[in-house]
Amino acid sequence: MKSFKNLCKEELLKERENLQKQYDNYLKENLDLDMSRGKPCKEQLDLSNDILNINDYISRDNIDLRNYGILDGIKEAKKLFADILDIDENNIIIGGNSTLNMIYDAIARLYMFGYMDNTPWCKLSKIKFLCPVPGYDRHFDILEKFGFEMINIPITENGINMDMVENLCKNDEAIKGIICVPLYSNPTGTCYSKETVERLAKMETKAKDFKIFWDNAYALHYIYEKIELYNIFDACKKYNTQDRILYFFSTSKINFPGGGVSILAGSDNTIKDTLKHLSKQTIGYDKINQLKTVKFLKNKENTLKLMEAHSNILKPKFDIVLNTLEENFKNNPILKWEKPKGGYFVSVDTLEGLAKKVVAMCKEVGVVLTDAGSTYPKKIDINDTNIRIAPSFPSLEELQKAINIFCLCVKIATIDKMLAENNL
Amino acid sequence: MKSFKNLCKEELLKERENLQKQYDNYLKENLDLDMSRGKPCKEQLDLSNDILNINDYISRDNIDLRNYGILDGIKEAKKLFADILDIDENNIIIGGNSTLNMIYDAIARLYMFGYMDNTPWCKLSKIKFLCPVPGYDRHFDILEKFGFEMINIPITENGINMDMVENLCKNDEAIKGIICVPLYSNPTGTCYSKETVERLAKMETKAKDFKIFWDNAYALHYIYEKIELYNIFDACKKYNTQDRILYFFSTSKINFPGGGVSILAGSDNTIKDTLKHLSKQTIGYDKINQLKTVKFLKNKENTLKLMEAHSNILKPKFDIVLNTLEENFKNNPILKWEKPKGGYFVSVDTLEGLAKKVVAMCKEVGVVLTDAGSTYPKKIDINDTNIRIAPSFPSLEELQKAINIFCLCVKIATIDKMLAENNL
Repeated sequence: MKSFKNLCKEELLKERENLQKQYDNYLKENLDLDMSRGKPCKEQLDLSNDILNINDYISRDNIDLRNYGILDGIKEAKKLFADILDIDENNIIIGGNSTLNMIYDAIARLYMFGYMDNTPWCKLSKIKFLCPVPGYDRHFDILEKFGFEMINIPITENGINMDMVENLCKNDEAIKGIICVPLYSNPTGTCYSKETVERLAKMETKAKDFKIFWDNAYALHYIYEKIELYNIFDACKKYNTQDRILYFFSTSKINFPGGGVSILAGSDNTIKDTLKHLSKQTIGYDKINQLKTVKFLKNKENTLKLMEAHSNILKPKFDIVLNTLEENFKNNPILKWEKPKGGYFVSVDTLEGLAKKVVAMCKEVGVVLTDAGSTYPKKIDINDTNIRIAPSFPSLEELQKAINIFCLCVKIATIDKMLAENNL
Repeated sequence: MKSFKNLCKEELLKERENLQKQYDNYLKENLDLDMSRGKPCKEQLDLSNDILNINDYISRDNIDLRNYGILDGIKEAKKLFADILDIDENNIIIGGNSTLNMIYDAIARLYMFGYMDNTPWCKLSKIKFLCPVPGYDRHFDILEKFGFEMINIPITENGINMDMVENLCKNDEAIKGIICVPLYSNPTGTCYSKETVERLAKMETKAKDFKIFWDNAYALHYIYEKIELYNIFDACKKYNTQDRILYFFSTSKINFPGGGVSILAGSDNTIKDTLKHLSKQTIGYDKINQLKTVKFLKNKENTLKLMEAHSNILKPKFDIVLNTLEENFKNNPILKWEKPKGGYFVSVDTLEGLAKKVVAMCKEVGVVLTDAGSTYPKKIDINDTNIRIAPSFPSLEELQKAINIFCLCVKIATIDKMLAENNL
């Protein structure tokens, strides 16, 4: 296919007509295809069905886990995740089934009670957070809920624009945190380089209680390439800044999103401070599920094998999306994207002002995408270009159809824009 | 045994010596007996072991519960608890494994965001809560954590001193709530009468966003007598005060404390307001555990059968405690208690100023009781009389020994008090 910019008005109009016919045909099919959320597919969930048959309830140190107690999580779970994440087991708390809830709780604690001797954030007139964009909508939703001002930080090839981050944090005491997905980032697939991690650990922050929310949600979730993330705790130890880290991880996309186990890791001070508050909040999380998780995952090696199986299911899906984008737009640069090395998404950028329109056109023909703008705080993508594609949930066949339709909609929207703007 | 008050100084001293010998003998035994927490015993936990073998994950409406979604809980769980509690299933949210966490979260939401259009409590200079005493230490701990002023409300035969409650609520806008265990109350076993429930529903409150935290933790947990609690939602409907109710329940003491399911019930407004906030906090609670709970409990009838089995295990334990207290103190009224109809505790009152001493003496000989004072806000029992005895966890043999030691300690402490005070 020729690049649109090499077509004259008549050719564009002809192409537009041809594309519209295809679109109209899809309309008749009453499709119901979903590329909106990063949900594992059935085949991925089936990889973990053996966990359903584990019925143990006695811990390795002979504690009856059916009963009350053990606020910070069972030892064997701490050991397992310590091994997987290369974090000291004493710096880990095992929680319930949702890291999002753990992140929300951590922010709520800082808001209501403050970190150690610092003023609770609810007592301050202004709180600001740095938000790498495009990013994860549910992170931004939490920050918005608390009324924090969100400052966009552009994602770069090696992580985020650290010059900007350093400059802002050094000079503004109201900036209390940044929320990062450092590996196979949602949605861009960005992996933070060692330098980025080092600079986050080293940087000066005017706020004494500055926090890095390190949501390592995709720590093991490679597709095309395994990337080793530099250990932020190691980096922080050099600069004595461990207290700024709140590290999150979960098994939601390892075993079951609906019944996994979440992890919070932090410095000695952070763990102590967190447990002080947590001891009033709950008697303990679901320890039976913690034990099931450990008995199922067994150890790091076995967990990595499971992740390889996930990768093997996801790779053909990402191939479909990426190959189809390539076929459609290689010689017609009206859509930009990067090939992610892992994670759950392909992030694409249309020409300016087209993302909402493309998503709406897809929706009308039965292809659901995450709402345009969702990857930005308050859902405001000022350029209206970014769209998050989630290939994991649909079948290969559904996905091929959905991405074909997506490409079709991008083309129609782009021609309309060209025709309107350029008076060709 | 003769009443101490009929003994002369010499007789008291002789009795003291005799009791001390028994105490010293116990000291040599290096005992380790625990009557401190309301934990089910192993035999009770074993009643629910079949739940461990349930491995379903498809809901009745054919949803794969392994995956993300369903914020408010699976339908069949709502139906089950609606039947058990006689509440409309649309007014129920199914949560994680801890009602304490649900209560904390509900308070945190009111503190951070406020109820509907009301001012968030964190923005007000003073918040007060009414606390029926003696009461549940973990409730008071949460209120203390939020910095609320706690006002003691005496427990009465039919619930709580409602004259006092009505008078306070009518006149003080800073009073934002009351936290009640309305059936087989912790620790007194008190059951709120229909009149008490009606008056709570009907009473005028100066605070528009006044909340009744209705922690019906022991709804089904009878031992000597099944008591029907008047449905507070029915009462509130008469006076259009449904929005003041936050109703909590859990299966912690039905199946497993470490892996049960919690329930929040409220008015249409309350559920809507709660879900609005909850949708930012989490994607959903552990639905697999919700399904397991439903498949195991099956229906109301079967759940009540299970509770009868719990009751059969607990009754002999309560018999031991109550009979031993009767034997020791029937004719020697130095200790007061009421026979509870259900729940997990026996609440006793020593003579003034002896509770701390008795608990310390018990501890020294290896019998652990809940700290004296714990049943009051900030652990301040100004008369130092109340002690909470939890008979559920120890074996019958251990319990008999522990309660014997307890009675011994009460007697020694009382004689010492009499000798010191009266210069007999």
